[in-house]
Amino acid sequence: MGVPAVIVMPVDAPALKLANTRAHGAEVVLYDRPGGESREEVGGRLATERGLTLIRPYDEPMVMAGQGTCGLEIASQAREAGVEQAEVLVCCGGGGLSSGIALALEADAPGLRVRTVEPVGFDDAARSLAAGERVANPSETGTICDAIVTPSPGKLTFPILQRLAGPGLAVTDEEALMAMGQAFLRLKIVAEPGGAVALAAALYHRDQISGDAVICTVSGGNVDPEMFARALETI
Amino acid sequence: MGVPAVIVMPVDAPALKLANTRAHGAEVVLYDRPGGESREEVGGRLATERGLTLIRPYDEPMVMAGQGTCGLEIASQAREAGVEQAEVLVCCGGGGLSSGIALALEADAPGLRVRTVEPVGFDDAARSLAAGERVANPSETGTICDAIVTPSPGKLTFPILQRLAGPGLAVTDEEALMAMGQAFLRLKIVAEPGGAVALAAALYHRDQISGDAVICTVSGGNVDPEMFARALETI
Repeated sequence: MGVPAVIVMPVDAPALKLANTRAHGAEVVLYDRPGGESREEVGGRLATERGLTLIRPYDEPMVMAGQGTCGLEIASQAREAGVEQAEVLVCCGGGGLSSGIALALEADAPGLRVRTVEPVGFDDAARSLAAGERVANPSETGTICDAIVTPSPGKLTFPILQRLAGPGLAVTDEEALMAMGQAFLRLKIVAEPGGAVALAAALYHRDQISGDAVICTVSGGNVDPEMFARALETI
Repeated sequence: MGVPAVIVMPVDAPALKLANTRAHGAEVVLYDRPGGESREEVGGRLATERGLTLIRPYDEPMVMAGQGTCGLEIASQAREAGVEQAEVLVCCGGGGLSSGIALALEADAPGLRVRTVEPVGFDDAARSLAAGERVANPSETGTICDAIVTPSPGKLTFPILQRLAGPGLAVTDEEALMAMGQAFLRLKIVAEPGGAVALAAALYHRDQISGDAVICTVSGGNVDPEMFARALETI
């Protein structure tokens, strides 16, 4: 759209993601995630100092609605496939994608139910759903699924998940790598660790999923070659 | 369709391709490509001995027509993108995909012209087009682009290419690996070496391609993890 964009990213983001963001013409401002700096504070400060419009990655109605179009596609494709009842596993950080999909399914395919999938130890959505209130992760670093690590579910996203989603799931980093390997082998697509957690749950946590059909999102392929090589080694 | 299938494959085919073919329920009969055995002879003998219908991989009108549906998609998507003149680079073995696409484009998008792309040293289509008659490759082994190595262009496919295609292109194995790496990095898709040669020509042989727009096929992702790791190392 020709609008200048300033993107706040953690210093430990994949090099490829940094390079791609810059290649698309954005200015990248790094923050020290491993050191405990908060991107919410950095973003807020930048917005004030420079007079920018702050767009949060998930707690934004338009972002949730945009990501929810994935739910419209799921509803339409499930209908084509004759699937009326199924669990829909969604890679979950702050819950933008999950809540957007949940809203779309509520309207278009009420027999499909969202289940959030997160990395073990960073399953704030699952624990918040179980607790009935928003709880935070003890840490924001320590998993290869960097893209979906967030402090806690969003203020806007959580009530939607609470109303519409089933219990949350969590997978290990090793399971995410194995799912990346299977996506390479069977689907011929490149998934990043955080984008492969839903597929990992479908493959390796079947006992926690009910029904004959399972639907899952694969979201994001910003993975450095070294990390992808680790996934290939799991095959 | 529930029809029993017997597939003739070379002993040096990727392990993944063998495994996938068997997993789909086919009986695989191996032939000694490195030792000079001819799959055409093996297939013909099997068909006679067992009373099977022989379906050739490219010199079959229905195969050419089926692969030509890719050309219908190219024509439709080029129209959407406002592209009326362009070269269409196609990974080429015996010419089934190339000739099918060429026929579809002749009908639906006559401003788009097919260019065959092959591995250096196995560019029988390019040399045949230059010579005005079907010529054979000196060898059928010695490239990682195994899927598109054929003895010579087909009897049915060559006259179509002669009438409709531009001069053929050839790329090195290293260029195919680099294109696989770029497909991973930028397109997030898994391509096998033979399926990446057209993209390699688009990326590394620009001086041989005319026009402002270029279209290329990526066909096939049956690549063993070890080979894909080699492609990742080119990044």
